[in-house]
Amino acid sequence: MEQQKSILIEGKNSVVEALKAGRPINKIYIRKGDRSFFRLLLELARENNVPIVEVDEQFLNKISITKKHQGVIAKGSPKAYLELEDLISKAKTTSREPFIVVLNEIEDPMNLGNILRTCDCIGANGVVIPKRRACGVTPTVLKVSEGAGEYVDIARVTNIALTLEKLKEEGFWVVGADMDGELYYEKDLTGPIALVVGGEDKGLGRLVKEKCDFLVKIPMMGHVSSMNAAVAFAVIGYEVVRQRMLKNAGRT
Amino acid sequence: MEQQKSILIEGKNSVVEALKAGRPINKIYIRKGDRSFFRLLLELARENNVPIVEVDEQFLNKISITKKHQGVIAKGSPKAYLELEDLISKAKTTSREPFIVVLNEIEDPMNLGNILRTCDCIGANGVVIPKRRACGVTPTVLKVSEGAGEYVDIARVTNIALTLEKLKEEGFWVVGADMDGELYYEKDLTGPIALVVGGEDKGLGRLVKEKCDFLVKIPMMGHVSSMNAAVAFAVIGYEVVRQRMLKNAGRT
Repeated sequence: MEQQKSILIEGKNSVVEALKAGRPINKIYIRKGDRSFFRLLLELARENNVPIVEVDEQFLNKISITKKHQGVIAKGSPKAYLELEDLISKAKTTSREPFIVVLNEIEDPMNLGNILRTCDCIGANGVVIPKRRACGVTPTVLKVSEGAGEYVDIARVTNIALTLEKLKEEGFWVVGADMDGELYYEKDLTGPIALVVGGEDKGLGRLVKEKCDFLVKIPMMGHVSSMNAAVAFAVIGYEVVRQRMLKNAGRT
Repeated sequence: MEQQKSILIEGKNSVVEALKAGRPINKIYIRKGDRSFFRLLLELARENNVPIVEVDEQFLNKISITKKHQGVIAKGSPKAYLELEDLISKAKTTSREPFIVVLNEIEDPMNLGNILRTCDCIGANGVVIPKRRACGVTPTVLKVSEGAGEYVDIARVTNIALTLEKLKEEGFWVVGADMDGELYYEKDLTGPIALVVGGEDKGLGRLVKEKCDFLVKIPMMGHVSSMNAAVAFAVIGYEVVRQRMLKNAGRT
């Protein structure tokens, strides 16, 4: 019997990473005649006892949500979310300098997928997303994350302002990305950090801004005054990495 | 008579920036009944003597290439490309520390649009793209760039390796983004810079790598070993900005 709720995981990288990360998968559909293209994937599937079903291109096109399946679609359990408390305690246990990302109303699945991919790159401990007015972890998000979505712990919360209060109580510096802030590279971003990123075009709301310990901005040198949300996140996220690497090398 | 070749510019920000930047536009279609949403746009159109045509939603849906027209589509001249020589001399005339971006086989219009948007944010002087095996400036690219594509000078070239030679002769440091490089923040990125970014999943080719003065890499702290090309570009691009701002403030 199939699980009641399942999600499609599409594209080679996403399915390979789902298998590696141990996500429960019911079955994997691959395009007929393409076995030789999917050697690593098939090996991982065998190790995990996941059945492979060879199907026509048309079948994949029909069930595909992303329309970029690259000849492979897996059917598996949806991403398991953590409770905020568990996300925080896991972050504090695994990292000397925990780094949590709080996404306030990111609505575009391309942006959320890209942000999750970058979260893995920067070694963030976890991501908090609101339950309402925000994009969840859909097949498109997983596809865009190129499998990185498998490795990032995610908690969904009802109230971002309360979440920021909680993070402060737990010893995090709450840093908001906002054009009213100081230059991002002028601030000390070492230590436990919660980085708050606003939705596309909207930035952070007033209440959320007030809950931040400080705000940082990215300087804009051109004609157009806004950045893509996922790109802005990566710029600040890697400044956190840079500062920590220099500090740990004893160079600041 | 219509121009022989024209391109669609879709979405409010893209059309507004096209008008502001003075791109030749034949006409603008807007959704019937939506005049009040497009006040700035209509004002700019009037100043530039561009006729407005009110049309049904269905008409816009039918002609739209991006499928994200937001109720407005303009028909205008395609983006004018510069010759490489002109791009370089313009960059050297307008900037004390010219910054040119060389894109080696970026194929995804979302990535190209995002990169052009970031080029405007970081104040890059221009972008070089190959004529073959690469994405040109399509309606989707313009839409994703949110109008920033209007302000970025672009040259298309037949041979990237020769372009890098030329840039070196003109006094640029040619910096390649590649996993074989040194940590990006350890290198001096002030002075005239040409930053070379590889295509999705492929990175830089051997020949292109050999033409670079040095290579820089972004540290990967997670499970998945690759970054989105547009995100990686922004991280290194903003390190260039950071180093220059600190240098100009006399702090390095």
